[in-house]
Amino acid sequence: MKKIPSNRSEYNYFTKVSTRWNDNDIYGHMNNIIYYALFDTAVNKWLINNKLIDIKNGKNIGLIVQSGCDYFSSFSYPDDIDAGIRVTKIGTSSVRYEVGLFKETEQDASADGFFIHVYVDRKTNIPLPIDYNFNKALDTIFVGL
Amino acid sequence: MKKIPSNRSEYNYFTKVSTRWNDNDIYGHMNNIIYYALFDTAVNKWLINNKLIDIKNGKNIGLIVQSGCDYFSSFSYPDDIDAGIRVTKIGTSSVRYEVGLFKETEQDASADGFFIHVYVDRKTNIPLPIDYNFNKALDTIFVGL
Amino acid sequence: MKKIPSNRSEYNYFTKVSTRWNDNDIYGHMNNIIYYALFDTAVNKWLINNKLIDIKNGKNIGLIVQSGCDYFSSFSYPDDIDAGIRVTKIGTSSVRYEVGLFKETEQDASADGFFIHVYVDRKTNIPLPIDYNFNKALDTIFVGL
Amino acid sequence: MKKIPSNRSEYNYFTKVSTRWNDNDIYGHMNNIIYYALFDTAVNKWLINNKLIDIKNGKNIGLIVQSGCDYFSSFSYPDDIDAGIRVTKIGTSSVRYEVGLFKETEQDASADGFFIHVYVDRKTNIPLPIDYNFNKALDTIFVGL
Repeated sequence: MKKIPSNRSEYNYFTKVSTRWNDNDIYGHMNNIIYYALFDTAVNKWLINNKLIDIKNGKNIGLIVQSGCDYFSSFSYPDDIDAGIRVTKIGTSSVRYEVGLFKETEQDASADGFFIHVYVDRKTNIPLPIDYNFNKALDTIFVGL
Repeated sequence: MKKIPSNRSEYNYFTKVSTRWNDNDIYGHMNNIIYYALFDTAVNKWLINNKLIDIKNGKNIGLIVQSGCDYFSSFSYPDDIDAGIRVTKIGTSSVRYEVGLFKETEQDASADGFFIHVYVDRKTNIPLPIDYNFNKALDTIFVGL
Repeated sequence: MKKIPSNRSEYNYFTKVSTRWNDNDIYGHMNNIIYYALFDTAVNKWLINNKLIDIKNGKNIGLIVQSGCDYFSSFSYPDDIDAGIRVTKIGTSSVRYEVGLFKETEQDASADGFFIHVYVDRKTNIPLPIDYNFNKALDTIFVGL
Repeated sequence: MKKIPSNRSEYNYFTKVSTRWNDNDIYGHMNNIIYYALFDTAVNKWLINNKLIDIKNGKNIGLIVQSGCDYFSSFSYPDDIDAGIRVTKIGTSSVRYEVGLFKETEQDASADGFFIHVYVDRKTNIPLPIDYNFNKALDTIFVGL
């Protein structure tokens, strides 16, 4: 069963991410692990800009319990990339983030990825409930599927 | 629906992979993208050692079309890691590789990942059928699920 | 003998480079190896934009024979960084590139790095003389020290 | 003035480091920034094994203030590499570590690198004097040049 790329219209928040020289692998494509680096970078930037996490001193940290990616077409350094971000599931302590990576001139994603964050106490690793403000912010990029 | 870690008994090939100082993220855990770097490293090493791919000059190259990972417990530099490798699906031109990452003292995986390689012609990107010798080698690590 | 950071006035070409989530190390700073990734990224982008190298098909490739960096103050994800680029030495087949990494609000570099490229034939690895057009382009960012 | 590679005889401590699939760049060589990742990995492993730093909870952390590398010949994944480590300078709060990276079958280094650690208080960033035990341990890999 073939996956279908997501479309720009399915996201209401975008941010730019950029490639690096050493992202290109021996075949001249952006290495598959870099996609995940870009997912993290795009989502955490949104979280930080919205003051939802404080990566240095915050009580709660986000741990990734699952991630995945479908690759449709390749990127290469020095491409700039549009990352669309959406939330598709909000649990008690967990959030499913989905990220579509788009070539600047295209409507369909070149890659669709996701990761599930569980928010835990930095010291004890015990899951912490997502509070009202966090929930409200997540709602702004929530997309029901 | 919670995933259950794989067990060492479900693999008949293992290789060692090691961690690097800069794998640790700000929370002191091996960053989630490094797991994928280790999957690639372990599987391609097996492919190269079995002379199934020639990454510099071979006619066929493996492109990743899908990947994913479930994270059960964390690693940290300077851990050494046992990677169990198995093949769970062999298509005309594609192979699904699964990799379990194990702490040296444990029977259950700390992370279970997979990626699907499609083998294509290096120049045209057209899928190439998996030949007899490749198939025979894959069979040695094939595990029916 | 303490090094002195370079100043923005010592460069006549700047480009933006950005940080990633996984650049931060366990101490919360951008890892020291990432600085070198940014040097490569900034300089090669300039080379590509000026059509001086073709990383996929070009006859000549740049190999790094020496590199180094002085670190004055730290960056952290999600910082955006201004990279100043200059050429300080042009040999028969080699070029010394220097890159200053600046916080967006500061005049003095947070890090000063360099690398020396030797341009060689992609197939034979034999050094190739820098041609007239390349030389002319390098002159536009040349700074005598 | 051409640099001369160091020789195995100039080190009295070696450790193995390994390469990863994504270390290879578009030209099929281990990317130049990975050398620095291996320097860090080799030296910090020695520090951790000798209980000289505790990267998660220790009072002192090592910050890199300068680093550099001379590249003589290339590595490629899946090479395994011998890293020779030596200390060539011990200051009040700083140490210069030098690392030679050797092909398993060769006596001369393929790359010679160094970095200078300044040991500072994790919270205040104020340099801390190197204590007696640390100094004694460093002496075991000290090589006067």
